[in-house]
Amino acid sequence: MAAEGSKPVRIGLLGRGTVGGAFAELVESRADAVEAATGRRPEISGVLTRSEGDFGAILERSDLIVELIGGTDPARQYAIDAMRAGRPLVTANKQLLAQHGDELFGIARESGVQLRFEAAVAGVIPIVRTIQESFGATEIDKVFGIVNGTTNFILSEMASTGAGYDEVLGRAQELGYAEADPTDDVNGADAAAKMAILARLAFHTPITLDEVPFEGIESIQPDDLAYAKELGLSLKLLGVAERVDGGVSVRVFPCFLYPGHPLAPIEGPFNAVMVEAPEITEVTMSGPGAGGLQTASAVLGDVVSVIAGEVPVHETRERLPVVRDVASSFYLYLEVADRPGVLARIATLLGDHGISVKSFVQRGIGDDARLVMVVHQCLESRFAAAVEGLAELDDMRGPPRSIRVIEEQF
Amino acid sequence: MAAEGSKPVRIGLLGRGTVGGAFAELVESRADAVEAATGRRPEISGVLTRSEGDFGAILERSDLIVELIGGTDPARQYAIDAMRAGRPLVTANKQLLAQHGDELFGIARESGVQLRFEAAVAGVIPIVRTIQESFGATEIDKVFGIVNGTTNFILSEMASTGAGYDEVLGRAQELGYAEADPTDDVNGADAAAKMAILARLAFHTPITLDEVPFEGIESIQPDDLAYAKELGLSLKLLGVAERVDGGVSVRVFPCFLYPGHPLAPIEGPFNAVMVEAPEITEVTMSGPGAGGLQTASAVLGDVVSVIAGEVPVHETRERLPVVRDVASSFYLYLEVADRPGVLARIATLLGDHGISVKSFVQRGIGDDARLVMVVHQCLESRFAAAVEGLAELDDMRGPPRSIRVIEEQF
Repeated sequence: MAAEGSKPVRIGLLGRGTVGGAFAELVESRADAVEAATGRRPEISGVLTRSEGDFGAILERSDLIVELIGGTDPARQYAIDAMRAGRPLVTANKQLLAQHGDELFGIARESGVQLRFEAAVAGVIPIVRTIQESFGATEIDKVFGIVNGTTNFILSEMASTGAGYDEVLGRAQELGYAEADPTDDVNGADAAAKMAILARLAFHTPITLDEVPFEGIESIQPDDLAYAKELGLSLKLLGVAERVDGGVSVRVFPCFLYPGHPLAPIEGPFNAVMVEAPEITEVTMSGPGAGGLQTASAVLGDVVSVIAGEVPVHETRERLPVVRDVASSFYLYLEVADRPGVLARIATLLGDHGISVKSFVQRGIGDDARLVMVVHQCLESRFAAAVEGLAELDDMRGPPRSIRVIEEQF
Repeated sequence: MAAEGSKPVRIGLLGRGTVGGAFAELVESRADAVEAATGRRPEISGVLTRSEGDFGAILERSDLIVELIGGTDPARQYAIDAMRAGRPLVTANKQLLAQHGDELFGIARESGVQLRFEAAVAGVIPIVRTIQESFGATEIDKVFGIVNGTTNFILSEMASTGAGYDEVLGRAQELGYAEADPTDDVNGADAAAKMAILARLAFHTPITLDEVPFEGIESIQPDDLAYAKELGLSLKLLGVAERVDGGVSVRVFPCFLYPGHPLAPIEGPFNAVMVEAPEITEVTMSGPGAGGLQTASAVLGDVVSVIAGEVPVHETRERLPVVRDVASSFYLYLEVADRPGVLARIATLLGDHGISVKSFVQRGIGDDARLVMVVHQCLESRFAAAVEGLAELDDMRGPPRSIRVIEEQF
C-alpha cells in the first residue's frame, strides 16, 4: 500500500469480541503513533459483527480488512472476497490459516495483496514476521516451542503445587487463562493449528491441520511431575516442526525438558518459540501467549506493516513428505509387583527392542514398586512396541505411562 | 524497491572481512531462496576493500549497497553517497549509527531509500525489525538486555569456574569469543553503542553514544561472584534504555539478577533483549550475539526486506530529556575490622542516607570481617553518597565495592 499523503487508511473491522474491541480502542489511542510510523492515519471505517453490519458495504469503504470474527465460516468467504477486491487482509484466525492456508495464500498472491497474521501464532511474539522476513532466505531446520498459554499455565501450576489436573484447570478457568470449554487448548488441537502455520512458513510446504498429530495434557498425573522433579525435568506441551530425512514432521505432545533448556524456564501463561538453522544457530523468543490487548497489539503491528509497504508472499516451493515415525527420548512410569526378576525381565524386554535406559528411580510401596526411568532416543514405533510388550508382562500392576523427553542438554 | 520480473538485484559490497566474506558466500548459496522469497535474484556486482575497488564505479552498477567495512571513516561518506544516489543501504556498523544516526536517518528520509541495520545490534536476534515494525505503533517503556557476547561469556565462565577476570579473558581470546584488543567489549563501550541505537528506535528520540554512560566488567572480582551465588544472584553486563520521569535513561553496567529473571539463564556468548510496554507486557528474544555467519545472515535478512519492499523510516518525534540519576538496588561488599559497633555504625550511616538493607551475609576472617549485603532500590546519587561516607569510616579495611542488582522477582 503506497503512501498517499495525509489521506487516512480506512480499516474495515470484522468482529468486535474481546480482541476486536481491544483493537478498535488501540486504533484510536495509537493513531498518532501509526501516522508517525507510516505517514498515514488509521481509522475504523466500518464494523461487522454476527448481528450487525453489511460486509459488502464495509468492503466498499475500506482500504484494508481486519478479520477478528474467528472460526472458518463465514470468515473464509470474507477473507477471499476482501483479497479478491484488492484489500490487504490482517487476521488473527489460526483455524482459517491452518485449514485453508493453500487457498488463502494462493488468492493473496494472485490478487497481489498482503495477507498478514502475526496474532494467529504465539500472541505478541513476532515469530511470523521473523520467519517470513528476517529468516526469509534461511534454510530452517526446526521450529518448536510452547504455543499454548493455557496448557503451560496448567502444567506450571501442577508442578509447583502438586495439585491434580482437574483442580488446576478449574483455577485456570477462574483466572481467565482457560475458556469455559477448554477442549481445543488442553487436547493440543489449538497448538496443532499454530504449528501447521509455522511449518508452512518455515519449510515452504503445504502442511494442513489434519497432517499434525497431537496429544494433550489431560492425562498427566501429579505423580509424573513429582518423579520428574527428582530427575530434574520440567513438563511442557511442545509443538515441534522439523525436517526429518528429506521430509517434515510436525506434531504436538507433552514433553519433559532438562534444566538449562531455553524453554524450561517458561512458566505460566507464556509462549516461547525457538528457530534453528545452521546460519543462525538458534533464536528463542518468548512473551505472553494471549490476552485481548496483547493480541490486538500484534494485529496493529501487522496493520502498520500493511500501511508501510509490501511483504514477500512465498510461493509454496515443493511438497515435502510428512514423516510419521521420528526418534525421541522417553520418560517411562511402571507400577510392578515387587518380586524377584521383575527388573531383569523389564530390562531384557527393553534391550530386545534396542532401547537403553539413561536414568532410573525405584520406589517400593507395599508389595508393589514404581519404576520410573528415562530412556535414550529411539524410533517412536520401536518404543511403542516395547511398551506394548511391557503391558503384557504379568508383573505389571497398571498400564505403563510414557511421556517424551527432550534429551539435548544445554 | 519494486519487483521487476527476473532482473537480478545487483549488490555493491563494501568490505570483505569475516562478515563480508561470509555474506558474499551466503548471497551465492542462498540466491535461489532469496529469489523464491522476493521474485528477484541477488548477485554481488562489485566489492570494495581498503586496498581494492573504486566506490564510484561500484555505486554506478549496484541497486543496493551493503556496508560491512566497519568504522566511521570512510564508511560514513560511503553511506551518505549511496543513499543520496538513491541506493538503499544495509549495514552492520553500530558505530556509524550510534555516532551519526541523526544524519544518516535524515538522509534516508530525504532520499526516500531504506536504511536497514539488523546486524548492528544483538547479532541474529531480530530486535531492530521487531521494534521498528511489530512494535512500530507501541509506546515502549523499556528495552534492556545482554547485548555483548564477549562479556557474557567471560562472566559465565568466571561464575562457573571461580577463575579470575584476566585468566578467563585469555580463555575467551583463545576461543575466539574476545578480540586481541578487547577494550571496547569489556569496558561496555560496544554495548553502549548498541543501546544508543535501540533507544533511538524505541523512543523516537535522538540519543547519541556520548549520552550513554557505561561501566565495564574489568574490575569484577571472583569474590563478588562467590558471594552473589550465596544470595542466589547471577551477574550480567546489562544495557538499559527506559523512560524515566518524562525523559529517558540509557546506560550500561554490570548487574546482578535474581533467579527466575528471564535474562538470568542467558549464558556464554549469547545475547538477549527484552522489550516492555503495557500493550505487550514483555517480550524476550535471545540468540548468538556474534559470529561471521550469523551476522552475515542478519545482513541477508535485511537485503531480502529491501528487495521485497519498503519499511517505515520514523521521524525522530521529539527530543526527550536524558535522565542521569535513576533508582537502583545495589550489592555492597565491605571489608571491615571485626570490632564492636562496626555493624551499628554502617547501618546507621546507610539509614541516614535513606537506604534500607534487603539481605545480608557476614563472614569473619581473622581480625577482619566481610559484610556483603543487597540494599533496596534508591536513587543512585544517594547510594553513591552513602558509599562515600562508608569509605571514610575508620572501620574499613579496603574500599567498598558495589554492583547494581535488578530487584524485581519474576
